[in-house]
Amino acid sequence: MFAELWNNVHTKTPLIHAITNYVTVNDCANALLACGASPIMADDVGEVAEITALCAGTVLNIGTLNQRTIEAMHLAAETANRLEHPLVLDPVGVGASVLRTQTAEALLAKHRFTVIRGNASEIKTLALGSGNTQGVDASLADQITEANLPQAIAFIRAFSQKTGAIIAVSGAIDIVSDAEHSFSIKNGHAAMSKITGTGCMSSCLMAAYLAANLQQPLLATAAATVLMGLAGEYAAKISTATGSMHCHILDALSYIDAEKLEVGAKIEED
Amino acid sequence: MFAELWNNVHTKTPLIHAITNYVTVNDCANALLACGASPIMADDVGEVAEITALCAGTVLNIGTLNQRTIEAMHLAAETANRLEHPLVLDPVGVGASVLRTQTAEALLAKHRFTVIRGNASEIKTLALGSGNTQGVDASLADQITEANLPQAIAFIRAFSQKTGAIIAVSGAIDIVSDAEHSFSIKNGHAAMSKITGTGCMSSCLMAAYLAANLQQPLLATAAATVLMGLAGEYAAKISTATGSMHCHILDALSYIDAEKLEVGAKIEED
Amino acid sequence: MFAELWNNVHTKTPLIHAITNYVTVNDCANALLACGASPIMADDVGEVAEITALCAGTVLNIGTLNQRTIEAMHLAAETANRLEHPLVLDPVGVGASVLRTQTAEALLAKHRFTVIRGNASEIKTLALGSGNTQGVDASLADQITEANLPQAIAFIRAFSQKTGAIIAVSGAIDIVSDAEHSFSIKNGHAAMSKITGTGCMSSCLMAAYLAANLQQPLLATAAATVLMGLAGEYAAKISTATGSMHCHILDALSYIDAEKLEVGAKIEED
Repeated sequence: MFAELWNNVHTKTPLIHAITNYVTVNDCANALLACGASPIMADDVGEVAEITALCAGTVLNIGTLNQRTIEAMHLAAETANRLEHPLVLDPVGVGASVLRTQTAEALLAKHRFTVIRGNASEIKTLALGSGNTQGVDASLADQITEANLPQAIAFIRAFSQKTGAIIAVSGAIDIVSDAEHSFSIKNGHAAMSKITGTGCMSSCLMAAYLAANLQQPLLATAAATVLMGLAGEYAAKISTATGSMHCHILDALSYIDAEKLEVGAKIEED
Repeated sequence: MFAELWNNVHTKTPLIHAITNYVTVNDCANALLACGASPIMADDVGEVAEITALCAGTVLNIGTLNQRTIEAMHLAAETANRLEHPLVLDPVGVGASVLRTQTAEALLAKHRFTVIRGNASEIKTLALGSGNTQGVDASLADQITEANLPQAIAFIRAFSQKTGAIIAVSGAIDIVSDAEHSFSIKNGHAAMSKITGTGCMSSCLMAAYLAANLQQPLLATAAATVLMGLAGEYAAKISTATGSMHCHILDALSYIDAEKLEVGAKIEED
Repeated sequence: MFAELWNNVHTKTPLIHAITNYVTVNDCANALLACGASPIMADDVGEVAEITALCAGTVLNIGTLNQRTIEAMHLAAETANRLEHPLVLDPVGVGASVLRTQTAEALLAKHRFTVIRGNASEIKTLALGSGNTQGVDASLADQITEANLPQAIAFIRAFSQKTGAIIAVSGAIDIVSDAEHSFSIKNGHAAMSKITGTGCMSSCLMAAYLAANLQQPLLATAAATVLMGLAGEYAAKISTATGSMHCHILDALSYIDAEKLEVGAKIEED
């Protein structure tokens, strides 16, 4: 199943447009190259519409947003919607400021997103208008566990129903769900949370997988989630600490082939 | 002594707000995670006050400053002061342009900084209104050596007296001083100067240590200085050249535990 | 030949000003340090003229350009021209948007560049006003091969004649040429194209080599091209995949000494 999706990314080399924060933008570009796609970053209103149109998929990430880039995000989203290109929202730190919350809400109100990917606190904030966001990491109270998995899935499905987007929630257990079908994914490693950018990279991988697999958006989102998690598992095995972990995650994203992705997936349909 | 400070960072996981240059911002975020803290970067005036208020400490770094971020820095500083949160200034390249010098001077004139951290040229420029800044690295003439250590300490104490801030000067010998007590620290390795961002990371570590150790700002600043230097020493032992050094410094920041910090410190009170 | 150029960089430690994209700016700074130069990044119109004047060479890279930085680029270029400092243009993704194309054309129309460095698609776009730009990577149709090398060189010489700049084209075969003399360089490794920033770093190395070797701009550009290619070769030998390749390229840039550069060069004058 995932092997085919992997092959499509590597055959089509989709060009992905990311308007993303300057903290992890280099990792995003390298993750896209490593997974078989190609990145372009552009955030000036004078060019975003053209760049989005040139690309096969777009990611909007609101970390380090500003007035100038917010305007660019709306223009990119409008273009992606008009051309029916996959569009991913990564609402980094939503809830940490009114600006982030209002920006994410305005983006959701005006445009159709193919996928919304965030940690549990970010998704909860978007869904409830509140949440418990502490900076850019999920608060402990919001973590998805085996115990609250059924409730979490019901909650996520309702949010998918409301937005029309696939919802991808990162955490110890990752959930990828639309309004009817849900996957829980247990790939990944705790050490990933000690490196900035694993969420941002994951959103970019999703855009690449969506762009190369237009007919199967839910599976494409799940495949990208598995890929990121597997990369963390591989990296954790050979890393001393966070610096080498960072390096090895990027190694693993290019090292994991179709078969490794297929065999390594720890995924269940719920 | 330092073991306790280390434990406080790891127990409290302080959230640190950095308005910092886009050259080394990824290293700053990863250094904060590696040392046990948590980073958030935000530089739009529409959200900085909220983000600063949410955080336990703030770093203002003037590398790649612009008119938009200068305004954000003032707002963040004002908020940190009002809430009595630790506030660190890293005057990268001050003296290299009138804009950097005037910005640093205006920040110092309007706000109280807990720590000002820079290389010898940067601190000299701030203290004398002149200095000998050559880009972002300290000029040779400004280096602190065994020979000029007593004069350097007297100079730094006077600047601390004037500003009310702890002064941290990076170099072959690091000095951490307030108006009355001074530490000279001989941790570190010459190869650190061949990697961009060791100074910026050091300022972030200081904010984390200050935020988790509010009652002991001078010791917290010294501990962060020792941690950065020790990380450089560990990294230099196993690195081929600058690329792996970069990676291993981040490894070491998470690898160094309370005991290693305590035992590894090469610090003297002057 | 190249040993002398290498020595001049390491003896003079030229300070290089880069206005460059935020995707690969950290790699650019670390590449400059690794090759023996020193970086400073600054993009606010309030300081770029001073920073350019303080530096020995300047790089303008139009990846992630915006209205604010475009203005800064013109000011930096004007200053570099007035002081007769080496000036390098890296037209990242020119042709991918009207904004990038018009910005590159305006920069070329108003200022004298010492070197223009891009991939084949970017150079073709600049020379013909069209091209075949797909994002930031060269399209297959534009690649320089053994078969089309003579035509490529004739084309590049004509563009050099028209602009007065040395033209450096990156690809499987790199070309460095002015209107009369051309070098083809076969250093490098295919894996370099799977890491973002090798082109941007190469432009920065060129600025460093030009600044330290003012009398020999063509050879300086060739030496920087060889250095980047050799770094890729060294790195590819010991790298598992793209994450470690990234790290090892920076290692190699500092590891390659004068002799290794001299001996490793696979260069022919055409």
